[in-house]
Amino acid sequence: MEMENGGISSQKWSFKGNELLVKSSEITIRGILNKLMDNLDPKDSRPTIPLGNGDPSAFPCFRTAPEAEKAISDALYSAKFNGYPSTVGILPARKAIAEHLSHDLQYKLSPDDVYLTSGCTQSIEVILTVLARPNANILLPRPGYPYYEARAIFSDVEFRYFDLLPEKNWEVDLDAVISLADENTVGMVIINPGNPCGNVYKYEHLKKVAETAKKLGILVIADEVYYHLAFGSNPFVPMGVFGSIAPVITVGSISKRWIVPGWRLGWLVTNDPNGILKKHGVVDSIVGFLNISSDPATFIQGAITQIFEQTNEDFFLKIINILRETADACYNKIKEIPCFTCPSKPEGAMYAMVRLDLSLLEDIEDDLDFCLKLVKEESVIVIPGLAVGIKNWLRITFAVEPSSLDDGMSRIKAFCQRHAKKP
Amino acid sequence: MEMENGGISSQKWSFKGNELLVKSSEITIRGILNKLMDNLDPKDSRPTIPLGNGDPSAFPCFRTAPEAEKAISDALYSAKFNGYPSTVGILPARKAIAEHLSHDLQYKLSPDDVYLTSGCTQSIEVILTVLARPNANILLPRPGYPYYEARAIFSDVEFRYFDLLPEKNWEVDLDAVISLADENTVGMVIINPGNPCGNVYKYEHLKKVAETAKKLGILVIADEVYYHLAFGSNPFVPMGVFGSIAPVITVGSISKRWIVPGWRLGWLVTNDPNGILKKHGVVDSIVGFLNISSDPATFIQGAITQIFEQTNEDFFLKIINILRETADACYNKIKEIPCFTCPSKPEGAMYAMVRLDLSLLEDIEDDLDFCLKLVKEESVIVIPGLAVGIKNWLRITFAVEPSSLDDGMSRIKAFCQRHAKKP
Ligand SMILES: Cc1ncc(COP(=O)(O)O)c(C=O)c1O
Ligand SMILES: Cc1ncc(COP(=O)(O)O)c(C=O)c1O
Repeated sequence: MEMENGGISSQKWSFKGNELLVKSSEITIRGILNKLMDNLDPKDSRPTIPLGNGDPSAFPCFRTAPEAEKAISDALYSAKFNGYPSTVGILPARKAIAEHLSHDLQYKLSPDDVYLTSGCTQSIEVILTVLARPNANILLPRPGYPYYEARAIFSDVEFRYFDLLPEKNWEVDLDAVISLADENTVGMVIINPGNPCGNVYKYEHLKKVAETAKKLGILVIADEVYYHLAFGSNPFVPMGVFGSIAPVITVGSISKRWIVPGWRLGWLVTNDPNGILKKHGVVDSIVGFLNISSDPATFIQGAITQIFEQTNEDFFLKIINILRETADACYNKIKEIPCFTCPSKPEGAMYAMVRLDLSLLEDIEDDLDFCLKLVKEESVIVIPGLAVGIKNWLRITFAVEPSSLDDGMSRIKAFCQRHAKKP
Repeated sequence: MEMENGGISSQKWSFKGNELLVKSSEITIRGILNKLMDNLDPKDSRPTIPLGNGDPSAFPCFRTAPEAEKAISDALYSAKFNGYPSTVGILPARKAIAEHLSHDLQYKLSPDDVYLTSGCTQSIEVILTVLARPNANILLPRPGYPYYEARAIFSDVEFRYFDLLPEKNWEVDLDAVISLADENTVGMVIINPGNPCGNVYKYEHLKKVAETAKKLGILVIADEVYYHLAFGSNPFVPMGVFGSIAPVITVGSISKRWIVPGWRLGWLVTNDPNGILKKHGVVDSIVGFLNISSDPATFIQGAITQIFEQTNEDFFLKIINILRETADACYNKIKEIPCFTCPSKPEGAMYAMVRLDLSLLEDIEDDLDFCLKLVKEESVIVIPGLAVGIKNWLRITFAVEPSSLDDGMSRIKAFCQRHAKKP
């Protein structure tokens, strides 16, 4: 008889883990990143070039605005925000976000339309939990952002993919949306500016999306976490502009625009001038969710008014300029690599999608194999298309310090040359 | 035909809210507080006295330690913590918490035992989600902290109550625990120092709890959010001390000890020297949960080492002294009120439980009626026992500025005199 803590080893324990959590969490970007990082060669003395995730905060040129830091510090030292916040967010913060987002709309959001969340991540969790009911399905873009799938799996919401069309600058295949939807479809997700495609949708296309949603009787979840990170010819148009066509739930945060994903401050906003979400119990469920969940730190909520008011326009210009420059540099380097095609130059967000022509490579099985070998041989991290829904593509983040991007792309080029099929 | 946004009113929308969220969220302390606040008389010009929740952060004498504020500010301005944290928490923070909590144990926690959460609130969410499986049940203390019930309802985990015994200084009725448990029982919750009872358990009692858990093959969830807030004769003993008898999951945060619930920094810790939780998949599920959830702000995580190292012992002494003083004052006032009995003087946390003798009151139906009328007539907020599981008791928070407590208790006394049954 083996002994275990003084008892006998036959001790039975009746608890066990929840496999759904493990299953849901396997498909996130973070999950893939961990797998890639494990493949780093410790003997490579060069710096690792992180072209994987959309978090350039560690690069000096992407440091957040000093006014934003000061706003946090002021809120902290005021000692007014040490207590529990209201579960939906403190009123001044809701007010500030309502005003901030109303600038781009033709109507005024009310503070009651705004719910504070722990980053756009929690906003996505909120809305997928709220919409869950037996047999419900949701329409997701392909390629897309796998956290939607993870939360849908966890909430037992079926998901169906509509394609984004590379030849049409990643517009939504609206015919596919119409043919996928049925009476159990509750909503569709649109990410603009686009992750992973780096595209920015035109007004007219967004309007068609809203009209399609109306026709189908579904709501639009507009993921605008990259709002205003647009540096091509299309300006950023918020989906909320079309909230009177179909109800729109906008999710966003300061993570990307202020380059502070670690601050975990986001929002969920009901763009619904006709009050349809309220009538259908969606608003009560959002409040219910937030009542039983944790909140973003109160003093960070308390800083948001000052962050909006005082961040200098120069900061945004600087960031946009760096992103435009790195997007261009990335796109030009891609063109030098025979086995890569990028259907259109990125105009927003932080990513380029690249099609991989495996027939030009000798010993690379697929996109994942490409990424694993690239990490091992060159200490460069890029995301396999697989992870964002389309196999044998790659997602490359250009939002890094320009010199790092240059270094990273050169290593990728060398890798592709080394693995090129010999004629 | 009525027009709605340019379309016909017969438009059908196929989404709706998730009633489970509304149902789960109705029973939280925050839910009850909102209801009570709605009953405030706007014509009463006196300050409202908040003896409802455990958040004294707004009172000057409870302001957090300046060293803690500085630690946050240092982490913020270092610009090292603006990016996404690792989903389980950044390593230096896990290390610091492991060391911090190991001081009170006879073995060393490893950083891998520690998971950072958005307050103890999220820790509770994690563990109840992890333990959920069809037919599982969990044993909860009565009276207790209703957030456990809310999360159990949401995760579809049955809960069964064991009583805390007022005549035995709120010890757990272990016979009840044994008779409640069956093969589907996965764990039991113990809150120490106690909310809502203000008690602190002795070493021997906690050991019996662990032995009972072992016998039943269940784990112990030890809610130690009030850790070290003990000011009577019993010192605080962490449940983790008994982790080799039965696996213990400790949940806690800096919310109460540093009086900063708004900072939303908590932890979940596996006290499990025998590796049973790992073996049963509980650890993988915890990681899975955190991989698909939002995190506490990175720079707040980044500050924790400095918060632990630099907070002056005087700060803790000051807080303990105020709590001892207010607990005494509250207890003495309770004794002056004929329809109140408090079985024992509070020795920890921030609350006193008071039994209400309705036979001595004229026109008060029950505890909820008492609280609603008290709010309306005296602008004093206390929690009805109903909300924490035992009808016709009250939970009174003494963690407020001493002068406010005095004012509040005097108003309660006047209220009881006014409503006393005339002989
Ligand atoms: C499309 C999309 N939505 C949501 C998020 C999460 O945003 P946050 O950092 O605010 O939680 C990301 C982060 O990369 C994203 O790319
Ligand atoms: C027993 C108990 N557990 C957990 C919590 C939540 O703690 P936190 O503020 O760290 O989320 C509280 C808050 O009052 C509590 O009383």
